[in-house]
Amino acid sequence: MAAIAAANVDSLASYGGDPLTQRLTQVAKEVFETDLVIFPVATGTAANALALSQLAPPYGAIYCHEAAHIVTDECGAPEFFTGGAKLIGLPAADGRISAGQIASAIAFANEMGVHHVMPGAISITQATEWGTVYDNAQVAAIAEVARANHLQVHMDGARFANALVHLGCSPAQATWKSGVDVLSFGATKNGALCAEAVIFFNPQQCVDFDRRRKRAGHLWSKLRFLSAQLLAYLDKDLWLANARNANQTAQRMAQGLRQISGVHLVHPVQANEVFVAMPEKLVAALEGAGFGFYRWPLCARKDDVAIRLVTSYATRDGEIDAFLSAARRLA
Amino acid sequence: MAAIAAANVDSLASYGGDPLTQRLTQVAKEVFETDLVIFPVATGTAANALALSQLAPPYGAIYCHEAAHIVTDECGAPEFFTGGAKLIGLPAADGRISAGQIASAIAFANEMGVHHVMPGAISITQATEWGTVYDNAQVAAIAEVARANHLQVHMDGARFANALVHLGCSPAQATWKSGVDVLSFGATKNGALCAEAVIFFNPQQCVDFDRRRKRAGHLWSKLRFLSAQLLAYLDKDLWLANARNANQTAQRMAQGLRQISGVHLVHPVQANEVFVAMPEKLVAALEGAGFGFYRWPLCARKDDVAIRLVTSYATRDGEIDAFLSAARRLA
Amino acid sequence: MAAIAAANVDSLASYGGDPLTQRLTQVAKEVFETDLVIFPVATGTAANALALSQLAPPYGAIYCHEAAHIVTDECGAPEFFTGGAKLIGLPAADGRISAGQIASAIAFANEMGVHHVMPGAISITQATEWGTVYDNAQVAAIAEVARANHLQVHMDGARFANALVHLGCSPAQATWKSGVDVLSFGATKNGALCAEAVIFFNPQQCVDFDRRRKRAGHLWSKLRFLSAQLLAYLDKDLWLANARNANQTAQRMAQGLRQISGVHLVHPVQANEVFVAMPEKLVAALEGAGFGFYRWPLCARKDDVAIRLVTSYATRDGEIDAFLSAARRLA
Amino acid sequence: MAAIAAANVDSLASYGGDPLTQRLTQVAKEVFETDLVIFPVATGTAANALALSQLAPPYGAIYCHEAAHIVTDECGAPEFFTGGAKLIGLPAADGRISAGQIASAIAFANEMGVHHVMPGAISITQATEWGTVYDNAQVAAIAEVARANHLQVHMDGARFANALVHLGCSPAQATWKSGVDVLSFGATKNGALCAEAVIFFNPQQCVDFDRRRKRAGHLWSKLRFLSAQLLAYLDKDLWLANARNANQTAQRMAQGLRQISGVHLVHPVQANEVFVAMPEKLVAALEGAGFGFYRWPLCARKDDVAIRLVTSYATRDGEIDAFLSAARRLA
Repeated sequence: MAAIAAANVDSLASYGGDPLTQRLTQVAKEVFETDLVIFPVATGTAANALALSQLAPPYGAIYCHEAAHIVTDECGAPEFFTGGAKLIGLPAADGRISAGQIASAIAFANEMGVHHVMPGAISITQATEWGTVYDNAQVAAIAEVARANHLQVHMDGARFANALVHLGCSPAQATWKSGVDVLSFGATKNGALCAEAVIFFNPQQCVDFDRRRKRAGHLWSKLRFLSAQLLAYLDKDLWLANARNANQTAQRMAQGLRQISGVHLVHPVQANEVFVAMPEKLVAALEGAGFGFYRWPLCARKDDVAIRLVTSYATRDGEIDAFLSAARRLA
Repeated sequence: MAAIAAANVDSLASYGGDPLTQRLTQVAKEVFETDLVIFPVATGTAANALALSQLAPPYGAIYCHEAAHIVTDECGAPEFFTGGAKLIGLPAADGRISAGQIASAIAFANEMGVHHVMPGAISITQATEWGTVYDNAQVAAIAEVARANHLQVHMDGARFANALVHLGCSPAQATWKSGVDVLSFGATKNGALCAEAVIFFNPQQCVDFDRRRKRAGHLWSKLRFLSAQLLAYLDKDLWLANARNANQTAQRMAQGLRQISGVHLVHPVQANEVFVAMPEKLVAALEGAGFGFYRWPLCARKDDVAIRLVTSYATRDGEIDAFLSAARRLA
Repeated sequence: MAAIAAANVDSLASYGGDPLTQRLTQVAKEVFETDLVIFPVATGTAANALALSQLAPPYGAIYCHEAAHIVTDECGAPEFFTGGAKLIGLPAADGRISAGQIASAIAFANEMGVHHVMPGAISITQATEWGTVYDNAQVAAIAEVARANHLQVHMDGARFANALVHLGCSPAQATWKSGVDVLSFGATKNGALCAEAVIFFNPQQCVDFDRRRKRAGHLWSKLRFLSAQLLAYLDKDLWLANARNANQTAQRMAQGLRQISGVHLVHPVQANEVFVAMPEKLVAALEGAGFGFYRWPLCARKDDVAIRLVTSYATRDGEIDAFLSAARRLA
Repeated sequence: MAAIAAANVDSLASYGGDPLTQRLTQVAKEVFETDLVIFPVATGTAANALALSQLAPPYGAIYCHEAAHIVTDECGAPEFFTGGAKLIGLPAADGRISAGQIASAIAFANEMGVHHVMPGAISITQATEWGTVYDNAQVAAIAEVARANHLQVHMDGARFANALVHLGCSPAQATWKSGVDVLSFGATKNGALCAEAVIFFNPQQCVDFDRRRKRAGHLWSKLRFLSAQLLAYLDKDLWLANARNANQTAQRMAQGLRQISGVHLVHPVQANEVFVAMPEKLVAALEGAGFGFYRWPLCARKDDVAIRLVTSYATRDGEIDAFLSAARRLA
């Protein structure tokens, strides 16, 4: 917030010509240890859809998880921005699609030829929709399939910081060194007011991307207010500290829930999301006790209802403990 | 062919103002026993994609079978024509999706609200991609779900004549009386040179459809050449006679194959397609003997390869018998 | 800025369910003295393109000035968001298109029928690109043509506050009472950090608009930060005070320039833009003296170069006087 | 027609794998004396829009005449197929835009940068909408501007045969030797049932074009019926003979009309269209006498009405003379 206020200097150049945006590029290069081009935008949907429109043609297929945010939560933004590319959703119980699945889907497309959408791009979500995290070898294997088929790899990193903290490696290792071409770098879920960025690790690949951003209404005249947020986010590893708190409180939650009878973790907890199945009665009782969360029908199991619990940079241990204590009491 | 030649009269009005096109409308009304509007086009992909673009908004979901022609064989035409609507492919072993599946998918969308594509339309294929046929009650049940959710039902009738012959009911019963709103009425696969038609059973629903056809490049200046084909196709029930031959030869094929050891029908044969699983060795031997057909990986089973055999208006019993005899010999 | 900081309360409902956004709706209704629906977005391009996509079909024509922002400055955003509608740019020396011009263009389209894009919407810019202002009677005449042809009227109000101050009437009078259906209500150019809004004066007309905003990536999860800006903007008529300063300093500039020999005002100055033609030599001298402005080739006259001078909420008389004094000296 | 009937052999490979389509490619190479790729389609709108979608990005500008068929007569097909590119219509009294005009428009776009659509392609119509013909030097000058700006040149050749007969040069000279990259090669207006073709003179430029054709519904399963028409059209210079008749009867018409008092040719007659201005009273009298033609408001002059008279491959001298005689009598 202070960073935004400090950016409130009116005589600065507009549309990204300002010094803050230039510094952001410099800082991002340092954080990712490589040459890159970074485009700040205000929402994750914009970041993902713009990135994909750069990678896949209108007659292209984009391979991703069947429950990826781009499939279920963006109201068709990728189809809109790409001009009609088709998202091919692949199943994967824990949220991580595999290189083999993608290779099979590409082989099918190639066999179909002109009648089918052409292999266009691959998009993986890190951390995944189910709160799991691809390890770098899995990403690299997918990237190898991509290379073999002349495709690019997009990473939806709305929760990239949480994944990175889990992996414990460098940002470079988790992205371009593992074969990622374009990253949707999320900050909003991890503390920013409204700031995401599309990062191209190969500057050659962003030709005309600025046109796409402009015609989608995502080029701010006072772009410095986005850049200022991202600078503050990256400064002194604030982003990693925020993510660390979120991941740790998620672990605390998971460990506590695991011990309650009738409550089951649906997926391994590796980032800041806890998917947990429990009897409808317990869910209703928790709601009755004033706790707010989403029911998650996609993850429901047998007779149990699934709910999603999300921790954040601001979650405190006490809040977790209060929830656990209530759950134990109501179970 | 004779019908096309007879239409070769140059002074007729262009863009559908000719008497042949007017007569086609009249004949179609008689065949389907209702008021309707019919738009001839040259390809099935155009018919389907134009029809869907009329029913679903760009931010809409179109519910259909996961292996529907519109999903796998039209290179993204529905996404293109609708401006980015999303095809939600539902699984169904025999090719027929159910009212219940669709209702669940709609319920999920409604729960997701603005973040998800909005329920937009339902598309069923008759006969299905797997050569099976919806009975009228199944269609009606789907239409009921559609009505309850203010959606329209599209029927991809590339093989509509084959389905109708199997059902043994009137064209009206198989379509609007069972709740179908728009029909892609196929003729090309059943004998025409290049003729399909989009039929709206509710004339109110085709507002501006002529604009969509024009801007997609599917309004012929000499439209009478399409209308002439469709008139000849409908004349004296030629279309049904053609389909009857195709269905009967498909049955002959199915019955013959069923008796060969190691050969299994993958789906019930109800129209003019026979999907059959057999050892790779036999498939290769048949290919070696000069027979041409597609391998169909989507239908493969265990160690067997699946192939698709399609009969037509022109298939003769002798051709079937020759194939069967070779298969028996090579098995 | 203070308003944004005050909105930094993390527990508020996301995606517009927060109390600030609700209050914004209430305040907007009071300001415009009518029922309405308001959708905050971050950029003017988004506001315009989203609004037009709601009004015109993909096969529609949008009538506007040939140099409108939507034509020349949005990199094709309206075409993108509408799915391909065509902007029909009409000439008008002072930036104001007339009801008669629009009526003629519509008549031409109607005569062409299905071969031409269908009349879809009308978009006028207030204040115009040339710094002039439509009076309410002109707007009403255009709206009458719209009504007669079942079209809607969009007003691009990136500089609406400046126009309103010039008109000296109520916001209601300048918009819906004169027949405007949808307003792009701009705040960024007049002091906000990044805040515009699409306002529908007829709530019936915004069906599914929330889907369009979402799929374009323009629905903020923390929407309250946009609403907070707009609330502060409207509070105690801050927006009008800001615009008044901009208009007055523009007048001061215009009156000063008018007295310099060889310098000519290109258009009447009614808002906060001054278009002025002068010899290339003087332009270069001003640039050499450190003044920054855009050359404006579209307004160039004979041997003279045209430049655009824009004042803002923050412009001070002293700055104007410094420019005038330099111009007098260098002329 | 005979050619189509002869193509009615059902066992041929589908989707263009047939020998007729292969032969068409061979014949086209001979006619144009170069390597090329030819894609038959059924309508001129499809040919133009598909070609342009290959040349211009969604955020591109396409420079053309303000009254080009692609601007006024295709219901937005180019915008649809390109995903929203903008047609920049340039004025030119006789239908021929100039290299200088295009260069200026490109310079403006470049000055505007990311805010404006990016120069994307150039499209010229040969013969033009006003029945005039670009000479080869004019085309070459335009192509030079294209090259200098890394753009491609598209020629809408719906009346290419008529232009060629007027020019009296080789097809090669009129196209790629003068810098044309892609030609919409029209046959329908000059005798075919429904046949146009997109011809790429640089085979490198048609990458994925087959996908675009397929997803637009313009890939015929029985493509040989289109190829057969084009082969017959090109055989023994039938296309040139047809065009010659059309041009000659147009000349006869023009020369006759020129001698009638109160009647004025609006444009030079160089192909098969005669635009002629005459008093409303005479127009009405001709209509009353049973002659059919379009009024052409775009070409109207002062108090006179303009009409368009089009001759064809089938027009006979006697028909012209009958019209002239009536016009003389009624004038």
